[in-house]
Amino acid sequence: MSRIGVLGATSWGVTLAGLLAKNGHTVVVLCRSPEEAAAVARRRGIARMAQVVLPPGAETGLVASPGPLDGCVLAAPSQSLAANLAASALDRGTPVLNVAKGIELASGRRLSEVIAAAGWDAAEVAVLSGPNLAHEVAAGQPAAAVVASARLRMAEWWQLVVSGPTFRCYRSGDVTGVEIGGASKNVIAIAAGAAGAMGLGSNMMAALVTRGLAEMTRLTVALGGDPETMRGLAGVGDLMATCFSSLSRNHRLGALLASGLRPGEALARIGEAVEGAATAPALVAMAQRAGAEMPITEEVAAVLAGERDVAAALERLLRPELAIESR
Amino acid sequence: MSRIGVLGATSWGVTLAGLLAKNGHTVVVLCRSPEEAAAVARRRGIARMAQVVLPPGAETGLVASPGPLDGCVLAAPSQSLAANLAASALDRGTPVLNVAKGIELASGRRLSEVIAAAGWDAAEVAVLSGPNLAHEVAAGQPAAAVVASARLRMAEWWQLVVSGPTFRCYRSGDVTGVEIGGASKNVIAIAAGAAGAMGLGSNMMAALVTRGLAEMTRLTVALGGDPETMRGLAGVGDLMATCFSSLSRNHRLGALLASGLRPGEALARIGEAVEGAATAPALVAMAQRAGAEMPITEEVAAVLAGERDVAAALERLLRPELAIESR
Repeated sequence: MSRIGVLGATSWGVTLAGLLAKNGHTVVVLCRSPEEAAAVARRRGIARMAQVVLPPGAETGLVASPGPLDGCVLAAPSQSLAANLAASALDRGTPVLNVAKGIELASGRRLSEVIAAAGWDAAEVAVLSGPNLAHEVAAGQPAAAVVASARLRMAEWWQLVVSGPTFRCYRSGDVTGVEIGGASKNVIAIAAGAAGAMGLGSNMMAALVTRGLAEMTRLTVALGGDPETMRGLAGVGDLMATCFSSLSRNHRLGALLASGLRPGEALARIGEAVEGAATAPALVAMAQRAGAEMPITEEVAAVLAGERDVAAALERLLRPELAIESR
Repeated sequence: MSRIGVLGATSWGVTLAGLLAKNGHTVVVLCRSPEEAAAVARRRGIARMAQVVLPPGAETGLVASPGPLDGCVLAAPSQSLAANLAASALDRGTPVLNVAKGIELASGRRLSEVIAAAGWDAAEVAVLSGPNLAHEVAAGQPAAAVVASARLRMAEWWQLVVSGPTFRCYRSGDVTGVEIGGASKNVIAIAAGAAGAMGLGSNMMAALVTRGLAEMTRLTVALGGDPETMRGLAGVGDLMATCFSSLSRNHRLGALLASGLRPGEALARIGEAVEGAATAPALVAMAQRAGAEMPITEEVAAVLAGERDVAAALERLLRPELAIESR
């Protein structure tokens, strides 16, 4: 068994810490401040993920002084990953598994690129993604995910560390596809949440999400990723779980926007980081650089920027046209 | 405007007849017996699709003597299509658009092959499929579909006939893919309905449906169809609409099976044809001939044959294994 850090006491971070502890690993939840670490230690978890109660063997520590680890799960929100890594004394040879799903807005980089820029060997970085609504995983319900690394040995190592009786990991070599899938489905989920709240039926919802999958696939291909990844758990699987479940924060954000709240108000109402919100404009810029059309993502970004209301955005997306089916 | 027959006073047939009438066409609903035709004429539709009220200009007629038509929509249940065509005096040069989603169990043929065997030029046959829950379409909610024909001119003609303000058709040349998508998603929907009723969460439901898409894609490829069709409305789009909506009869059949009803009892409870029930064993045989693995379809067929209960089938499907993500 291994000694595994979990950087970031987020809902998903704490949930994975609980899974790792159940798998027999010694878990160290790494926080930014001694106060946060003390709070996590005191309540054996965090308030907004009360289902997870870390076992007595689980430790807390500081990002700035993590001590020796066999590996570290990176569970910080996408937009603060770089700052967390900069503040961290983690040995740059420590295997890392990033589990956040987003694109860094300030730099336009995928998170594996952010990690490489912080000193890790890009080929060794691993990422995890898939249909993993945290509340279900925390409740012990079964789920499956994909672990990708350019170095298959690293994907295999993390696969064995993270997989357990209720959480099954598959391996992939397509880091780009897995990252684009996880980041972009959050944006499509905002659109789906808004469309559902506007009364869109099952038929058009399915059509909307299908077009979402098409634009995710276009971007993946334009960036050199594998379109087959979009057919799998980290693509359409995660997309379906998020678009057809109101447990997703991104989905809820869409519904709040459709109810007429301004973007800032809606984000404040949710309280926790909503990955799709910053990722939407980051993806629009990335898609423009790569030459990939992403109309749904563009509409979501326009709504979040306050440039368009939900009804107008939806009307633009559903405007009829007779054509050969586009992908 | 054209004179269009609709063979089969089924829920979907009557719904499409209503759409065609709204598009300005003269619709002739073709029934097997004078009694059925009189009943449809009297109530301007059918009891189980009361939302559709055919306009005064809509006619009824007999399959045996359809009269001259510019085109004919084939909306008979899959397992009775051949008998309907054999009984029909339709000119074999009349353009036909099949809208049922199944595989003929007795022969193992796709429905376009059944139509060709009845005397039509295989290249001219058109098929329609997509996320089109009939009750939503009948209620005037927007939806989109794919029309496929080996002869693109035929797909274009039907596209213009069927498309209207609330129903948008895209063209495709991939008849095989569109037919396999429509037939196989009904079987996966039975599995999803059963799994949902057994309490499967959103994460594993997404994983199950993702594996369903993978097996639909494998069969499509094995039969020479285009895997890209499975990424579109007639593949994953229809799959999502059916697996995540309880409006689908196939989905309801799965839920009834999970509640412990025997297959015959569950089918009797629904009353109308449930396409996936006969299509499941037909697809199993087709997949064996083509050399495509379809584990979910096999489990559904085994449950429907009374050889396995739902809990055992689900356990077999969700049995964990650590592997490279399979497609």
